[in-house]
Amino acid sequence: MLNDTIVAIATPLGEGSIGVIRISGPEAVAVGRRVFQPKVNRHWYVQDNYKLVYGHVVDPANGEIIDEVLLSVMRGPRSFTAEDVVEISCHGGIVPLRRVLEVVLRQGARLAEPGEFSKRAFLNGRLDLAQAESVIDIIRAKTDAGAKIAISQLGGKLSQQINELQQELLGLLAGIEATIDFPEDDIPDESLQNMVDRCTALIKVFDQLLEHAATGKVYREGLRTVIVGKPNVGKSSLLNALLREQRAIVTDIPGTTRDVIEEVINIKGVPLKLIDTAGFRETQDLVEQLGVEKSRALLQQADLVLLVLDAATGLTDDDLQVVDLVKDKKVLVIINKIDIDRSLIDLRQLQQLISYSDILEISAQKNIGLERLEQSILNLVLAGKVTAADQIVVANSRHKNALERAKEHLEEARRGLLAAVPADLVAIDLKSAWEILGEITGSHVTEDLIDRIFADFCIGK
Amino acid sequence: MLNDTIVAIATPLGEGSIGVIRISGPEAVAVGRRVFQPKVNRHWYVQDNYKLVYGHVVDPANGEIIDEVLLSVMRGPRSFTAEDVVEISCHGGIVPLRRVLEVVLRQGARLAEPGEFSKRAFLNGRLDLAQAESVIDIIRAKTDAGAKIAISQLGGKLSQQINELQQELLGLLAGIEATIDFPEDDIPDESLQNMVDRCTALIKVFDQLLEHAATGKVYREGLRTVIVGKPNVGKSSLLNALLREQRAIVTDIPGTTRDVIEEVINIKGVPLKLIDTAGFRETQDLVEQLGVEKSRALLQQADLVLLVLDAATGLTDDDLQVVDLVKDKKVLVIINKIDIDRSLIDLRQLQQLISYSDILEISAQKNIGLERLEQSILNLVLAGKVTAADQIVVANSRHKNALERAKEHLEEARRGLLAAVPADLVAIDLKSAWEILGEITGSHVTEDLIDRIFADFCIGK
Repeated sequence: MLNDTIVAIATPLGEGSIGVIRISGPEAVAVGRRVFQPKVNRHWYVQDNYKLVYGHVVDPANGEIIDEVLLSVMRGPRSFTAEDVVEISCHGGIVPLRRVLEVVLRQGARLAEPGEFSKRAFLNGRLDLAQAESVIDIIRAKTDAGAKIAISQLGGKLSQQINELQQELLGLLAGIEATIDFPEDDIPDESLQNMVDRCTALIKVFDQLLEHAATGKVYREGLRTVIVGKPNVGKSSLLNALLREQRAIVTDIPGTTRDVIEEVINIKGVPLKLIDTAGFRETQDLVEQLGVEKSRALLQQADLVLLVLDAATGLTDDDLQVVDLVKDKKVLVIINKIDIDRSLIDLRQLQQLISYSDILEISAQKNIGLERLEQSILNLVLAGKVTAADQIVVANSRHKNALERAKEHLEEARRGLLAAVPADLVAIDLKSAWEILGEITGSHVTEDLIDRIFADFCIGK
Repeated sequence: MLNDTIVAIATPLGEGSIGVIRISGPEAVAVGRRVFQPKVNRHWYVQDNYKLVYGHVVDPANGEIIDEVLLSVMRGPRSFTAEDVVEISCHGGIVPLRRVLEVVLRQGARLAEPGEFSKRAFLNGRLDLAQAESVIDIIRAKTDAGAKIAISQLGGKLSQQINELQQELLGLLAGIEATIDFPEDDIPDESLQNMVDRCTALIKVFDQLLEHAATGKVYREGLRTVIVGKPNVGKSSLLNALLREQRAIVTDIPGTTRDVIEEVINIKGVPLKLIDTAGFRETQDLVEQLGVEKSRALLQQADLVLLVLDAATGLTDDDLQVVDLVKDKKVLVIINKIDIDRSLIDLRQLQQLISYSDILEISAQKNIGLERLEQSILNLVLAGKVTAADQIVVANSRHKNALERAKEHLEEARRGLLAAVPADLVAIDLKSAWEILGEITGSHVTEDLIDRIFADFCIGK
């Protein structure tokens, strides 16, 4: 698999000045030679490295000039994949890129699968798994905060922390296994106490890492936020009011895909993916017409529900139906239209219905209370936790899950030590914790998992 | 204006592996130095040229790592703009690109205007105007044929031809002006005949260039094709049948803008921009409900109209109304649903109504007659002219218009010579022809025109 040479368009598709075709593998330079006619530097392929060569991509089949390009050679192992890499920088339109790609394919390269370049970087040992995963997080970052976390992960901060934890676990294991060699002996008391202390200290590190994991996930994946409410309650106005102020800067740039444009807003670095609940809007008998199934599915995936009520109507039967739908979710209750004379909503009744939620009074139309709403959203998401700049943030659910599982084994080991269970049983738990941490950096990982991780990447990465 | 340093995102915006930020101008290297921290090659800025340097973009304000990048330096005049150019190849997402761009802007570069890089390439003499214009044609090419024409133009084939024409005109002018110095003398007969012959030969070259200009425009801009017909006549089926077979390959690639996806089909290299006439579909009294104005405007811009009739209904009043709307356009009449028993359309009546159109019988549903339809479209567009591979194709309306105007002056000059008008009047026409040709390559061109041409480019080009 790693013996062949792959190629893909590495830049986003669309209209742009520059587009890049990336070739990687043992034949990268040879393929480049077959399709590229340099203007001056005729012997670029002999030993040039990290150089740009100006010339044309020419179809060897008929001598036709395909595009004017800059070609660069990065020889392995000093390249993104640690293999020989040739990048052809041509004109950024769809047709010229496709034409260059086709010529390269005809000269013996194979179209890369999604994530295959990053996968090779990992398999060739240039990046560990957490670093390779961060590449796609950088590209898909929705806010500055998300990009920062991913860049830090690419730099290896998380991996370094994981490696240190693994080292400490190995040290503990060595201590335990020394006693297993002499099963007739119990672990000496002072040594046992030392091991328990070390476990306790380790668990604390796990806790610190996990403390910001929920936040990290939000920064990475965005917060799925569903706005619900009976018709005419002001959901669209709320959406517009939030959009006008905090629309994620990414969405100002034309060319962003439409769903991103319409859905993501940026509240102090937290990307809110607003889910369209247009369906809630045009229906009279909410539950019946919408189809309980569909709305349940929508709400099922929500990280946060913004339930909008109308101060002018008071609580109606429609409202109660909506409340019933969302009562199991993380909800912020928003009383809209407080710019009217007097709110008809009975706050005490409301608190009985959804006792665990914050209740906010706003006027989307008059721009009242929106700042407080945003702060409430942040409080709910960050749970009061402010992430320090140098904090390692576990943003990936896969990593978080591994940390949780490893921590469970560690706690089990600690309990075992305290209960004086046989040392080899404690060792099994420590070893499991060590192995599970290896899933994060990829030192212990199945081929299947690797395939799954990289299949989620985009082509050309 | 040319003394400052500009920057822009040069790759299309979206999700991709690589994104490129391009900086050009006297301060390009200095700005690069301020934002870039190389990993190894600490003195890249001293003399490196056409080299890639690995490192990080770091915000000098706070030392924050913004992205892991490859930086390349191309010193003027050997660069795209003929100025110092620094390109930063970073991760291809919207957020990382925006963050790198922002840091560069804060270090003293100015955001480039659309087309400003190409404009500088022209103003600095690295490309002539026709070549600079071809850059955007390559990027926007809709089919292979369009890309080929643009690449040839970038290579300078058209410019070379124009230069030769200008040389020949200068030669003629010199001959004429020699006689003006001695106004008492008439132009000697043999010399006059020679000049007339040379004019005739020149006009022939103009004609050859103009012969393919209509085709060239179609390849470059696509053929605006409107499908019209009364409701239920099978317009959607026709559209689908054409799409299924010949959908432009560009549209298979996700990420293409939506309007391109839905509108462009590729018939043997000719891009057909299909104009949505959904409005025609849902109306009963066609002319009245659609609003004559709107449909007239739509048809006004059409290069080709596909008028669909229904074999099963025969010609109805609705059809006659549609016929009335399109009678001044280039129309192909398509009788759909010929898979029914017997066509109720009276071909003789139809021919009387639209005598100058081809009439084709098809079944969109059963896929009958579509190939012949495509061939008819091609015949109509190319008017039987097959463009040879080495033919210079004038694809740009601006160039075509200049050629036509220059040719008129040349014909006027030839008539003047034959009518023995004073030599200085002939000279004025020859000089005008020479100047107008200069508009194509930019040797004679106003600042205003230059601004207009490049304003149509995309940012980063």
